Amino acid sequence: MASVTKSMLDAYPKSINLDRAKLATVIDTLNACAQACTACADACLSEDDIAELAKCIRTDLDCADVCTTTARVLSRHTGYDANVTRSLLEACATTCRACGDECARHAERHEHCRICAEACRDCERACRDLLATIS
Amino acid sequence: MASVTKSMLDAYPKSINLDRAKLATVIDTLNACAQACTACADACLSEDDIAELAKCIRTDLDCADVCTTTARVLSRHTGYDANVTRSLLEACATTCRACGDECARHAERHEHCRICAEACRDCERACRDLLATIS
Amino acid sequence: MASVTKSMLDAYPKSINLDRAKLATVIDTLNACAQACTACADACLSEDDIAELAKCIRTDLDCADVCTTTARVLSRHTGYDANVTRSLLEACATTCRACGDECARHAERHEHCRICAEACRDCERACRDLLATIS
Amino acid sequence: MASVTKSMLDAYPKSINLDRAKLATVIDTLNACAQACTACADACLSEDDIAELAKCIRTDLDCADVCTTTARVLSRHTGYDANVTRSLLEACATTCRACGDECARHAERHEHCRICAEACRDCERACRDLLATIS
Repeated sequence: MASVTKSMLDAYPKSINLDRAKLATVIDTLNACAQACTACADACLSEDDIAELAKCIRTDLDCADVCTTTARVLSRHTGYDANVTRSLLEACATTCRACGDECARHAERHEHCRICAEACRDCERACRDLLATIS
Repeated sequence: MASVTKSMLDAYPKSINLDRAKLATVIDTLNACAQACTACADACLSEDDIAELAKCIRTDLDCADVCTTTARVLSRHTGYDANVTRSLLEACATTCRACGDECARHAERHEHCRICAEACRDCERACRDLLATIS
Repeated sequence: MASVTKSMLDAYPKSINLDRAKLATVIDTLNACAQACTACADACLSEDDIAELAKCIRTDLDCADVCTTTARVLSRHTGYDANVTRSLLEACATTCRACGDECARHAERHEHCRICAEACRDCERACRDLLATIS
Repeated sequence: MASVTKSMLDAYPKSINLDRAKLATVIDTLNACAQACTACADACLSEDDIAELAKCIRTDLDCADVCTTTARVLSRHTGYDANVTRSLLEACATTCRACGDECARHAERHEHCRICAEACRDCERACRDLLATIS
């Protein structure tokens, strides 16, 4: 996956306003987080304590949607608009923070929540790192 | 469409932190904007002056993705998190503004850009109206 | 929503291989079904009998994703490929059938499941009607 | 990415009707293909011969949407329905075939089309391999 993202960035025919290596890492981290959240929501649905996990499922679903959309926007460079990128990265970092916090509450009980919390932490950090290079 | 969104909000079994009628309007406006942007991107692909429309196609694609994700997040009320909703509405308003501006540049030449610009303006306004009721 | 979909189809600059009025109806029905499924999944998360609704939540999530993607593909006419359209409409009808069946099992207990089951039935029918005009 | 997908599958609390290692490979291949298609569509928008690439952009967009949705459905195991999985894998293989064929036509001229064509071929094969284990 990492290689496809970076190879495609290298094949982009015009200039890109952000560092290509850093960008590839962020996009891959976003896609990994989206994947973890989609899987965590479903794993929660099959747990005996599903009633305790309702909020976790909801934040997983939000986080999967926001990360997928952010990865798509970051994969487009034609007609780049820093305002759109910046506001979306901020929303994504906020969503990853919320989801990471909620998953962390169940991390001791459920391995999928532990892995997902870590994916959310990584993703929040990646979004904030990239944000720091934009403004 | 409007009726399904409002009917489903009315059928939600617990309290909702936002006004249900206003929320239904915003969700429907977001979905309409996403639909307009997806269709506008494709219509641009079939225009003779496609080279002039590259940035328009790109912002259309971003806007469709961000509006769809925002509509989904606003359709979830379990474990509501005001920070997530607020940051996503801000990102969505910013994206709609950018897309509306770009589509407006081609509105005289292309009817689909004119309609899409209007959908983006409506959607930006709806997001900002809802934002004003949150913080 | 309906008017934006139809207006955008009318503004498409080249020929479209399917009937525009029928196509607009199918796209609107798909978007309404996606909206109902996203909302139903979240409403189920807030029900006291959530443990009984785990499969319903899962089919709702699948159906929302498949309907959204199908609506997007049907909204594109440039470089039309009947094989892609046909196979996706078949997958969408199958998914709507599965989700409608599962929601119907909870329709007496939960109004959101009743409404969602109806949206899935409408959507399955719309997909099959359009399929019949393609092959 | 690969490790997150497989780790989450291993953390799923109940049985899964498909081979977990194979499933992880297919999901990762789908996500890689979606990423390649999103990036290829945008790279095409920045090429001088954009007019020749209109159909390629369109199939890229379809393929990104269908692969993302298929990866999500395959990442859910609760309340598994073989009919839904099978019909979606068939639609996905058909879409990857169409996109791979179109990208291949531009592979000599554009490196991003060459890489994307390869990602589509891999993905079509992965979908058909998994399909063969279902029915």
